[in-house]
Amino acid sequence: MSDTQTTTTAVPGRIMAAEMAEQPAVLQRILDEGAPKIREIAAEIAARSPRFVLLTARGTSDNAALYAKYLIEVLLGKPAGLTSMSTTTAYGAKPDLTDVLVITVSQSGGSPDLVASTKAAREAGAITLAVTNNPGSPLAEVSEFHIDVLAGPEKALPATKTYTAELLALYLLVEGLRGGDGAAAKALPELAAGILARHSEVKALAERYRFAQRLVLTSRGYGYPTAREAALKLMETTYIPASPFSGADLLHGPLAMVDNVSPVIAIVPDGKGGEALQPVLDRLRGRGADLVVIGQQEQVDAASAGFALPAGVPEEVQPILEILPLQQLAYEVTIARGQDPDAPRALAKVTETH
Amino acid sequence: MSDTQTTTTAVPGRIMAAEMAEQPAVLQRILDEGAPKIREIAAEIAARSPRFVLLTARGTSDNAALYAKYLIEVLLGKPAGLTSMSTTTAYGAKPDLTDVLVITVSQSGGSPDLVASTKAAREAGAITLAVTNNPGSPLAEVSEFHIDVLAGPEKALPATKTYTAELLALYLLVEGLRGGDGAAAKALPELAAGILARHSEVKALAERYRFAQRLVLTSRGYGYPTAREAALKLMETTYIPASPFSGADLLHGPLAMVDNVSPVIAIVPDGKGGEALQPVLDRLRGRGADLVVIGQQEQVDAASAGFALPAGVPEEVQPILEILPLQQLAYEVTIARGQDPDAPRALAKVTETH
Repeated sequence: MSDTQTTTTAVPGRIMAAEMAEQPAVLQRILDEGAPKIREIAAEIAARSPRFVLLTARGTSDNAALYAKYLIEVLLGKPAGLTSMSTTTAYGAKPDLTDVLVITVSQSGGSPDLVASTKAAREAGAITLAVTNNPGSPLAEVSEFHIDVLAGPEKALPATKTYTAELLALYLLVEGLRGGDGAAAKALPELAAGILARHSEVKALAERYRFAQRLVLTSRGYGYPTAREAALKLMETTYIPASPFSGADLLHGPLAMVDNVSPVIAIVPDGKGGEALQPVLDRLRGRGADLVVIGQQEQVDAASAGFALPAGVPEEVQPILEILPLQQLAYEVTIARGQDPDAPRALAKVTETH
Repeated sequence: MSDTQTTTTAVPGRIMAAEMAEQPAVLQRILDEGAPKIREIAAEIAARSPRFVLLTARGTSDNAALYAKYLIEVLLGKPAGLTSMSTTTAYGAKPDLTDVLVITVSQSGGSPDLVASTKAAREAGAITLAVTNNPGSPLAEVSEFHIDVLAGPEKALPATKTYTAELLALYLLVEGLRGGDGAAAKALPELAAGILARHSEVKALAERYRFAQRLVLTSRGYGYPTAREAALKLMETTYIPASPFSGADLLHGPLAMVDNVSPVIAIVPDGKGGEALQPVLDRLRGRGADLVVIGQQEQVDAASAGFALPAGVPEEVQPILEILPLQQLAYEVTIARGQDPDAPRALAKVTETH
């Protein structure tokens, strides 16, 4: 989206476009400058052998935390959960967190409830790790360990580069925890640049949703956090209600909602998640749903339309690429509807929830 | 809704109405006949001192599992997580589950992925407990322990009585695990009957949503599972896209979506969850949102409209009552839109996901 970078501040979406375009450079920076520190922290944490992992976050960062949960369960073989923050901040729950690693993910590191719950977790015996874009933040300060996602200041209200930066940092963390080399991430900056350069394809897809009144997003496994993040991005920029479902949950009820005015966007991972999603795609095609696929070329060819992702990328890092055309889609649909992606109504960049 | 029980099978929603009306009797049956066995199972599990609790479920039962997660964190003080089933069934994750209690919640006990993941959990060293409405189910068979929620056959596609039955059974389980007496539940059958008798109030509320194209549901703490279950119920019967958000998450992005054509239904718990929700309600009122409240009379009075719940009920059992007017609302909006709540298009009662 570099063509929009040089325009004036009056151009809607200028900041979001610039930040989306920075993503390949941010990913490269994490690999070059961030990885050694992440490996070091991972080694210190691994030496203390946590048995369980709890992840705490809100909004976009909560989707990054969900991605990490899949990595932790599948690659690390440890049970993991996403915390319900209000149990600590509203109800004062004091669980015993010995042997528990608590990872708090936050772009700003400034939300008071995240700081309070992380502090409480540390007092309850947890190993605490903050993953933020702000090493000087209160969250980084109260946590025993801190990983800086090195994305640089993010000014657009819809988070883009901090999301992919959080994903990569969390992937490298889990690789470090299990003694892996993180090799699957090496090609990501170049692949990301290649995807972002195809924004004219996304612009064409966006026409489809200009007048949409609802959207359903679905995926399974590693792709499910992408479905959730894409839904959030679409809702906060376009204001179209976008409901994300794991493919299995979609069949348990919400499928009734899908008809010819409810387009579906499926993120089809290249691997086991995508295989597990096939019966859901068959059901959707059987219902005559408008199905747009983000996935491999053959999956796109079997759908109404889509965006083909590069082949040969290990499934566990595909989410770092899958979200890119969906960020652009949110941007393009918003522009097409005459709104400004940089400044959704009613939102502030740092949300102070307690 | 007893007035609809005697009509013929041709009447849309007859089965769902009858099953909603059974709920006070089901709750009473659990208290009278189910509680001793639940206490016994809880004592056996407590003696083995699980350190961490994982909950596995899909659809409506997943919302019951989320309720249990709040109980476990707040009342029991143990860390808990909802599992991402595909990590086991699609990716073959083999986490070490020593000292972990795995609770699988399912109306039918028949879904192959639930059976497979519970079996895998037991092999990985977990204490396994199935909570189902079918003691003869494959799930009950592969689990070490089984709690029957005693709701009787459920024939309408939208689950109603099995949801409240699962909630009460899970509440009694957690009470048993912590050595509580479950006294807070004693009054529920009578209170539930009182709420269900006020269906004309809900019918009037339903007029509001007859032409709605979207809905937002929100709550915090113990009320959040209610927001999710109400959204699911509304989506699968009315086909209106209904997005549930924790109040805190709503402020992190989706608030942009709320405008004068996006009505909001807030479940306001009487207690700490409701207090934590107040800033969100203030923001919504400040945006001129159409706000319907399910909560105490004074909360309803401060909103556009609502349904007042009985006072003096302990917060941890309020979800068992909160959902009742919302089930009726899904039913009434569906009828008003000329659809049949008993048989949403495209759905089967037992969903076979793998």
